Amino acid sequence: MNAVKKSKPSLHTVLTPQLLDLYEIKDSIVVIIDVFRATSTIATALYNGASKVIPVDSPELCIEVGKQTSGVTAGERDGKIIPGLSYGNSPSEYPRSFIENKTLVITTTNGTKLLHMALKQGAKNIITGSFPNLSKVVEFLKSQDSPVILGCSGWKNKFNIEDVLFAGAVIEEVKTHFDIQCDSSFMANQLYMQQKDQLTTYIKTVTHWHRLAAFGLEEDMLYCISRDVAPSLPIFKEGALINQV
Amino acid sequence: MNAVKKSKPSLHTVLTPQLLDLYEIKDSIVVIIDVFRATSTIATALYNGASKVIPVDSPELCIEVGKQTSGVTAGERDGKIIPGLSYGNSPSEYPRSFIENKTLVITTTNGTKLLHMALKQGAKNIITGSFPNLSKVVEFLKSQDSPVILGCSGWKNKFNIEDVLFAGAVIEEVKTHFDIQCDSSFMANQLYMQQKDQLTTYIKTVTHWHRLAAFGLEEDMLYCISRDVAPSLPIFKEGALINQV
Repeated sequence: MNAVKKSKPSLHTVLTPQLLDLYEIKDSIVVIIDVFRATSTIATALYNGASKVIPVDSPELCIEVGKQTSGVTAGERDGKIIPGLSYGNSPSEYPRSFIENKTLVITTTNGTKLLHMALKQGAKNIITGSFPNLSKVVEFLKSQDSPVILGCSGWKNKFNIEDVLFAGAVIEEVKTHFDIQCDSSFMANQLYMQQKDQLTTYIKTVTHWHRLAAFGLEEDMLYCISRDVAPSLPIFKEGALINQV
Repeated sequence: MNAVKKSKPSLHTVLTPQLLDLYEIKDSIVVIIDVFRATSTIATALYNGASKVIPVDSPELCIEVGKQTSGVTAGERDGKIIPGLSYGNSPSEYPRSFIENKTLVITTTNGTKLLHMALKQGAKNIITGSFPNLSKVVEFLKSQDSPVILGCSGWKNKFNIEDVLFAGAVIEEVKTHFDIQCDSSFMANQLYMQQKDQLTTYIKTVTHWHRLAAFGLEEDMLYCISRDVAPSLPIFKEGALINQV
């Protein structure tokens, strides 16, 4: 019997949305990563029973889609709820007692932009990930045998550390399943391995921590780097993220 | 006497040329970094007495400028000298006995592109850096009291590790002189500090090592990560890099 050794699918890490066009997105699984706080909040709302989450890229669209879907509208700028919307971007605002069976329409800048770019470029599947649903993301990637793009949302197209740390955590769990020839992935994995045992101290040194801490959001951020506290798998289908169970 | 505490200038690291437009380049010092091998070779040629180095972005322009300046033309693609040019991109090709008092016209892709972008965006000074001239770069940055952009050339607009390691090495030496609020810089510095004691082992894991090792260029690359073996300060003036002494 001649067993043919099957080649492993590729895995790449995209450090900011501005670099997405350098990668082969078509037919890949794209993981949208926006640790502070969009993809942490999305994982949480779906874990707590939201029927779906619709990410939109402007407050105006959020209001409009909110009306169409009778959904909960959410969005913040500079730590405050955007006028015209009802809730903020904090995962703590979406316990089961509030969000179960509801539609959440959320406006975010960095993550939503990246999601729409990946959609336009023909991604096979789009899921969202953050530490609260790390194991669910890992399980899914290991089960699919498809090329993977770990897409960091960054901050206004710039690189940020918290998203890359999550990419590095995913890589640590899936790396034997993929053929990785990508310096961004090597770096992400090395940075995560260097810092994983002091993540709650280390995270306080990154630029985004300082920006959000000024709005009193320290507890939110510590939640956003907590592993598997909201084990859902948000997958994008027909315009919305639903929990694939 | 009321001493006014002077604020420190900023320092940012740009991970690939595709991200340069996100940063304030005007009036900054931009350090062009292309460790494998353009900026290592440039440092070496100038250290060995080349009168100037003219970086150009195509073989055609290299031939033309070579004729105009009676210069030595250099450029490689896939490890071979480009037809029509006379020499390659290896620092070992430019000892003092050959290059002293000559003009070197060199075609490179990633580094030259970044240099021209920085020029167009109004950089105050453009210098080039790599491990062979690390201390000269550090000295210059510390002496200038200007904002600094560490510009990594990457590979076809993608992130690469060797350029970021050099940025991290510079940051380690200058960080008390600058106000650094930049996750790319934090990451670069952390990666360098994590790997600096095993740099010759670590460098063999990065993607560019594998690409160039396939052309037998291992010795070149080990030279390119050697500190201060060609202590020159290439600074861009009137269309060419000259050694500022």
